[in-house]
Amino acid sequence: MKVYLDNHSATKLDPEVLDEMLPFFSEHYGNAQSIHDLGVKAKDAVEKSRFKVAQLINCGPEEIIFTSCGSESNNLAIKGVALAYKEKGKHIITSAIEHFSVLNSLEHLKKFFGFEYTVLPVDKYGVVNIDEFKNALRDDTVLVSIQLANSEIGTIQPIKKLVSIVKEFNTQKKERQIKTLFHTDAVAACGIIPADVKELDVDLFSLSASQLHGPKGIAALYVRKGVRIIPQIDGGIQEGGRRAGTENVVCIVGMGKAAEITKQKLNENYNKMLLLRDKLIQEVPKRVKYVYLNGHPVERLPNNVNFSFEFIEGESILLLLNQKGIYVSSGSACVSKTLKLSHVLKSIGVDPAVGQGSIVFTLSRYTTQQEVDYVLDQITPIIERLRSISPLYDYFLKTGQRMLTTSDKSYDVHEEEQN
Amino acid sequence: MKVYLDNHSATKLDPEVLDEMLPFFSEHYGNAQSIHDLGVKAKDAVEKSRFKVAQLINCGPEEIIFTSCGSESNNLAIKGVALAYKEKGKHIITSAIEHFSVLNSLEHLKKFFGFEYTVLPVDKYGVVNIDEFKNALRDDTVLVSIQLANSEIGTIQPIKKLVSIVKEFNTQKKERQIKTLFHTDAVAACGIIPADVKELDVDLFSLSASQLHGPKGIAALYVRKGVRIIPQIDGGIQEGGRRAGTENVVCIVGMGKAAEITKQKLNENYNKMLLLRDKLIQEVPKRVKYVYLNGHPVERLPNNVNFSFEFIEGESILLLLNQKGIYVSSGSACVSKTLKLSHVLKSIGVDPAVGQGSIVFTLSRYTTQQEVDYVLDQITPIIERLRSISPLYDYFLKTGQRMLTTSDKSYDVHEEEQN
Repeated sequence: MKVYLDNHSATKLDPEVLDEMLPFFSEHYGNAQSIHDLGVKAKDAVEKSRFKVAQLINCGPEEIIFTSCGSESNNLAIKGVALAYKEKGKHIITSAIEHFSVLNSLEHLKKFFGFEYTVLPVDKYGVVNIDEFKNALRDDTVLVSIQLANSEIGTIQPIKKLVSIVKEFNTQKKERQIKTLFHTDAVAACGIIPADVKELDVDLFSLSASQLHGPKGIAALYVRKGVRIIPQIDGGIQEGGRRAGTENVVCIVGMGKAAEITKQKLNENYNKMLLLRDKLIQEVPKRVKYVYLNGHPVERLPNNVNFSFEFIEGESILLLLNQKGIYVSSGSACVSKTLKLSHVLKSIGVDPAVGQGSIVFTLSRYTTQQEVDYVLDQITPIIERLRSISPLYDYFLKTGQRMLTTSDKSYDVHEEEQN
Repeated sequence: MKVYLDNHSATKLDPEVLDEMLPFFSEHYGNAQSIHDLGVKAKDAVEKSRFKVAQLINCGPEEIIFTSCGSESNNLAIKGVALAYKEKGKHIITSAIEHFSVLNSLEHLKKFFGFEYTVLPVDKYGVVNIDEFKNALRDDTVLVSIQLANSEIGTIQPIKKLVSIVKEFNTQKKERQIKTLFHTDAVAACGIIPADVKELDVDLFSLSASQLHGPKGIAALYVRKGVRIIPQIDGGIQEGGRRAGTENVVCIVGMGKAAEITKQKLNENYNKMLLLRDKLIQEVPKRVKYVYLNGHPVERLPNNVNFSFEFIEGESILLLLNQKGIYVSSGSACVSKTLKLSHVLKSIGVDPAVGQGSIVFTLSRYTTQQEVDYVLDQITPIIERLRSISPLYDYFLKTGQRMLTTSDKSYDVHEEEQN
């Protein structure tokens, strides 16, 4: 049996989406900027897809910019706004558990443009503290970038509340030359939970086709009408002059279809995943001792389960699960090749010795009851086997004491990411 | 009959390439950074493709960075090098007929980082003057960006000669803190003419899957080992930390296969296209009067034909050809929706009244003798029909004089491109 539970990292393409895409490879292969029939066909398809993506998040099609990936959307949102409004202020607020495309974009702005940014800590569940958020807002704060939900621990942030605080802050001081804008990285959330940009009242919103079972290589950024951004890929007039480069027509068509399908069955899939998620969350600790759930118990993505299994290493668990045809992640998609504790687990205060044994199970709308049962059957012997050869567990059994082995190295975005 | 001669704007996907891509949509859909079997499969496929792309241009696989489009490759090359070496110098040299992704990247660097750039004029064939190039080199010149060939008029630049001048310049002054680097935008050339980065001796080289009959949404940048670049999409560790974002595995696989096929038949396809190109170049003026070839007569891409048909407008020709199933372009892919004279034609000194009637025919390896004959049959009545209703032509017939109607608006990158 093959059980794919690494759906934040990548998803299976919906067969209906592929059917929609195929004619654009070999038949309707024109450039969307060409004015002959093949170009018109491509342009129409792009605009229909833009409309469908806009419908998914409840915005106008002209507020959607297609990009090549969630990371590009986050880069464009943050750098694009920062450069457009840099004369008005150079301070940005973010949280400690953002994706590296957010954190490293901020580092870029700091290094090359002298921006300052405040990284808000999160509580043990990964939630931003409202009072600390209020205190972080400054007269020169041009942007807030806080994710809608975390891909690794599943925690959903109180974005509506945070936005309302920003809106209030914006009206308090009439003499301020600037309105603080709000960006949310919804790459992990959009398509999994209802996400309506009007209701959230955000100014910028990143989403990716991946969580919609669309193709890789395509994503989008919502930019509220009236918000200026400086393009990060300069060139032609595509995407309203905000993102140059020949339109990736095939993948845009795929993202449109994926958005349409996702919207139709969002609630149904939500409920289905929630049941299976909760089964994993409830059943694993019944079968295995010394296991801890990371992330919020309730305000959590319906497809995310993150457990720390004490005394053993996540990568070993991952590899033994892999032998049984179960595919999971031991950290966020971008840092899974390092054995260091992820910045997310570190930020929620997980003990490094415990956090090293963390596994992320990310479900999808294709995940079945049978698959979850299979995982539950396989996980116990694997954890037992690894603990049987673990010196940490042996020490614990003999002494009743925990022997910490992991030094708590200080976190550095660039050290970890850009070598 | 359908005849697609707009192959710079977009190309038909090679069916063999599609076959190679398909399993990665629905079967091998893992994230290339995941360490389970599906991730390993994806990673292997990405690295095999990187090797194939490297083989096409004769570099090491570690010197290839995958990007989402040719425009992104050009942005990354120019901004990436400029930011990496900005403490050493802030001057860049380019030519007047570069793609907008080059020219507008330079504008970005000027506006946001205080760079200066010199735009070299070109001669009537579109060729950069060697002496002017020599004179433009300054002690603070960090980069030269000159295209290998022009997509609109087909002219091939003497890159090897220009590079040798830079190398000589780099050795002249021992006290200089910097070596001027050389980037060539080879998006229009690579896959059409032999292009070997070792032989050209360039430091950076942009190429796109499009000219290889690969998928849209994928391109690459060659960066010579040892050359530093600052990432333009920040985030994870993908592409050696130089371009973040989940790898677009399917399209990377497609680009690899497309590179492999292209390399195998490059000479054969070159000769085939050359014959058909020359047939168009020779036959059209035999059938239609007052027609002028734009671009270099010899140092020219084998797939490019650019004619100006006097007294009429390119867009009208394009639309009538379209009615006959012939798909062409009336300008560069990015500006085809404007009736203004393209910056390329303007730079080679084409009279605006003549240049407005310009059509670009871009052939591909799929173009046949029958298709070219069909175009030759159709073009004469179309040109005659349009001239029969042209007041300019009427005036010319009656007076023997040319009546200029087009004002020569000064060229502005941002006015034209970024509204």
